[in-house]
Amino acid sequence: MQNEAIAERQEIRVGGLPIGGEQVVVMAGPCAIESFDQLVSLGKQLREMGVSILRGSAYKPRTSPYSFQGFGKEALKWHSEAKKEHGLLIETEVLDTRDVELVAEHVDLLRIGMRNMQNFALLKEVAGCKKPVILKRHISATLEEWLLSAEYLMAYGNSQVILCERGIRTFETTTRSTLDLGTMVAARLGSQLPLIVDPSHAAGKRELVAPLSKAAIAAGADGLLIEVHECPSEAVCDGRQALLPSDMEVLIPQLASVATAVGRWL
Amino acid sequence: MQNEAIAERQEIRVGGLPIGGEQVVVMAGPCAIESFDQLVSLGKQLREMGVSILRGSAYKPRTSPYSFQGFGKEALKWHSEAKKEHGLLIETEVLDTRDVELVAEHVDLLRIGMRNMQNFALLKEVAGCKKPVILKRHISATLEEWLLSAEYLMAYGNSQVILCERGIRTFETTTRSTLDLGTMVAARLGSQLPLIVDPSHAAGKRELVAPLSKAAIAAGADGLLIEVHECPSEAVCDGRQALLPSDMEVLIPQLASVATAVGRWL
Amino acid sequence: MQNEAIAERQEIRVGGLPIGGEQVVVMAGPCAIESFDQLVSLGKQLREMGVSILRGSAYKPRTSPYSFQGFGKEALKWHSEAKKEHGLLIETEVLDTRDVELVAEHVDLLRIGMRNMQNFALLKEVAGCKKPVILKRHISATLEEWLLSAEYLMAYGNSQVILCERGIRTFETTTRSTLDLGTMVAARLGSQLPLIVDPSHAAGKRELVAPLSKAAIAAGADGLLIEVHECPSEAVCDGRQALLPSDMEVLIPQLASVATAVGRWL
Amino acid sequence: MQNEAIAERQEIRVGGLPIGGEQVVVMAGPCAIESFDQLVSLGKQLREMGVSILRGSAYKPRTSPYSFQGFGKEALKWHSEAKKEHGLLIETEVLDTRDVELVAEHVDLLRIGMRNMQNFALLKEVAGCKKPVILKRHISATLEEWLLSAEYLMAYGNSQVILCERGIRTFETTTRSTLDLGTMVAARLGSQLPLIVDPSHAAGKRELVAPLSKAAIAAGADGLLIEVHECPSEAVCDGRQALLPSDMEVLIPQLASVATAVGRWL
Repeated sequence: MQNEAIAERQEIRVGGLPIGGEQVVVMAGPCAIESFDQLVSLGKQLREMGVSILRGSAYKPRTSPYSFQGFGKEALKWHSEAKKEHGLLIETEVLDTRDVELVAEHVDLLRIGMRNMQNFALLKEVAGCKKPVILKRHISATLEEWLLSAEYLMAYGNSQVILCERGIRTFETTTRSTLDLGTMVAARLGSQLPLIVDPSHAAGKRELVAPLSKAAIAAGADGLLIEVHECPSEAVCDGRQALLPSDMEVLIPQLASVATAVGRWL
Repeated sequence: MQNEAIAERQEIRVGGLPIGGEQVVVMAGPCAIESFDQLVSLGKQLREMGVSILRGSAYKPRTSPYSFQGFGKEALKWHSEAKKEHGLLIETEVLDTRDVELVAEHVDLLRIGMRNMQNFALLKEVAGCKKPVILKRHISATLEEWLLSAEYLMAYGNSQVILCERGIRTFETTTRSTLDLGTMVAARLGSQLPLIVDPSHAAGKRELVAPLSKAAIAAGADGLLIEVHECPSEAVCDGRQALLPSDMEVLIPQLASVATAVGRWL
Repeated sequence: MQNEAIAERQEIRVGGLPIGGEQVVVMAGPCAIESFDQLVSLGKQLREMGVSILRGSAYKPRTSPYSFQGFGKEALKWHSEAKKEHGLLIETEVLDTRDVELVAEHVDLLRIGMRNMQNFALLKEVAGCKKPVILKRHISATLEEWLLSAEYLMAYGNSQVILCERGIRTFETTTRSTLDLGTMVAARLGSQLPLIVDPSHAAGKRELVAPLSKAAIAAGADGLLIEVHECPSEAVCDGRQALLPSDMEVLIPQLASVATAVGRWL
Repeated sequence: MQNEAIAERQEIRVGGLPIGGEQVVVMAGPCAIESFDQLVSLGKQLREMGVSILRGSAYKPRTSPYSFQGFGKEALKWHSEAKKEHGLLIETEVLDTRDVELVAEHVDLLRIGMRNMQNFALLKEVAGCKKPVILKRHISATLEEWLLSAEYLMAYGNSQVILCERGIRTFETTTRSTLDLGTMVAARLGSQLPLIVDPSHAAGKRELVAPLSKAAIAAGADGLLIEVHECPSEAVCDGRQALLPSDMEVLIPQLASVATAVGRWL
């Protein structure tokens, strides 16, 4: 039953890497790009563990105008330069229609953050570039709204869309958001697009990331997007939810076991 | 007590009209601009009733890429041309950073829709124009997030911000959104910005608009943003929640009575 | 329009007092009954202001087993004894099927608290007594579920049901609950039962109670249930949301003005 | 890491069966008990598959007074009689303080349904019986409220409490409730009580039950509570979410694989 579902899934290729096939893909990295050295050092460690894609934001959408807004263009350059050193594929978020072309030149995989899931001007612009794109579900989006935002990307020309569940806003404040694996499963049944899960933003707390990562794979996720930082207490943002590289080293073989248990590999 | 609160409120001037003073301001009009004639005809009727500002969207953010997206630039021109006929102040939504300058030339009051409350690129761009702006609360925004988005506009140069409560997303589906007057009152206590209420999008149903409009004024709103259409059954969008001009004619004196009861006028 | 709606409403009589007619009824009092003297003193003050019914809980449903659980039977006796002194009608909450008969003997109006809205054993038991009953909406109940709980009371024999909106649980934590006047209005359109509003539990903060009370009346509520305490800082529970008697003295004429503005009286 | 957590968990014994140890326990059966024959037939099939406890409700809490309310005492007798035939442990819901003693005589494990999580009179009564009890989380309960309701049971004398996550109410209607595995994990970290998951009521749809069951085990659940019916289309309630016995036969070895992958067994 699990395998039939996989067979029908549309594979998206990032670089040469298929997303949505039998392999469960791990994407990891810092919330924000903080330096060139950070990317090289972390990228090398993550590559050895079996991570495929290095995440990292050059542009940061921040609730407050007084919070750190990302190093922007400079961080983009660090990202593509560091790739030569660590050899991982790289992804980053795009926030502004006017940055799409530049961002698409530098990375292998674009990300539309949850706040921009219904920024239709941005969706149309990203639809015009040739790079695959992660579309995060807004914290208050229904399944239908999420799929219709994916439809914007496809209707305007980009069918390389990877959906990403990252938790919804509910009354419960124990977790930063409520990871909604039920809707993720329904999205898999109602769409051919690959589906990944970001357990870090859902959890908001380091100690919940490992169990939620395993749960996501057990429920059928095609990949994970996990925040990792070498020194979370000094991270410019979201340090509370970042795993240490040493946590990842313990976690990855556990994830591989769960993947095997549901007929996949990592 | 009511009057002290008013005294501290910062007045924003739209054209010469003060928002946030003793007068409760009514803004009304169609969801989407459908034709030049529509604006002239409706504008004239609304003016006679005491409406101050004609709302109408040239650019429409739509959940589905296959829904009507607005008449765009042409509708903007109709809006400013029709103003010469009906004499009302006019407002419209801006969706794209690249449209801000053009939109600001045509209308008296800009609107940032709820989906763009955390579109920080757009907030920064709108902050650079000289026109007053309505900032709608996102359906999943906390009070703090809403005020911080207003802070973006102010920090980047535009202090003429009018907050607009339009309902939040909850489990309850009887109404389209749940109008949150409690947070509106808290926003009045925690900010000097004027606050208006959009009962139409909260209600989603015509028959709930009048009671919620009265409630908003009783709770202290500085204005209302109401959808009105001459033939709701043929409206290109949101007809189910639009009042008829004849409904408005009945409603406005009722609103005036409630305004008087709380020490204001309309 | 407002008056037609009133005409169709079913009046419930508490003592001789009609609820659901043109009069807007104010019920007020302490969260928990703390002493006989408290009831007499507060009851006398509230009566002079025009309050009709003295609220007060003898049995308290508390989230923690270690919180004050109410003075129980003794407080019930104080409640009915004090009535002889202050002359107001009295109401209280009933929590346990085994207490229904006793409680019904002591007070004029029973209250089923929000946590018990779907305690079907209790609904059936209360349906068997002859006293009118307030049915509070659960913080997570839809309109349909709320009306079906009222249907339990009616189907099992008690048609003297007064619905009470007291706020729903949402992601917003600025207020204790989100007062849902939209659904209250829809409940008025979809049912003949009288509807009152408890702004105190929705607000959770004293300073929001007055504006929400006015809003409730403007939206068409048939009454209000307000927490008042002579010394909120020493209240055994919910002091943060209790008004002082002096606040009530200021508020009541304001409420009367709003009632008049919507064609009713208080 | 996983194993350390397990080591600290308090084991609850139902009959002789430990809940909260290395074994993941499967409880399954019909929503409502419909006949003696149903229990015998289904019980025998489930036993062969490795299910440990047969669930089934004699008393049904129903939103509408006109829905089927359960066969009551008669169904309780069927439940304990059928046990002699199929040999499984049995559990059922208790709704009314006055039924607690009777129910406790008939079954091995009591269940407090989500609607009664804050029915404090019932909690106190159940605390007085000697049987282990499942405490379901209310669809709108925070983690703290849920744990405090467990504290009622413990403070009043019954420490054999098993927590059950069954989904919370959110804006998303794709699933009946939103299964909240993040809070389940947090509950495991914040309490020593065993934790099980009811994927059926969360999902509301048969096709989502298998993936959510695997996710629950991967996240660390100590057991599952799954609805199974021999002919879901004729079930008196909740047929849409019931698995067929043949579905369970496929599912159970899959669950066993996931349990093994996280260092447990089933």
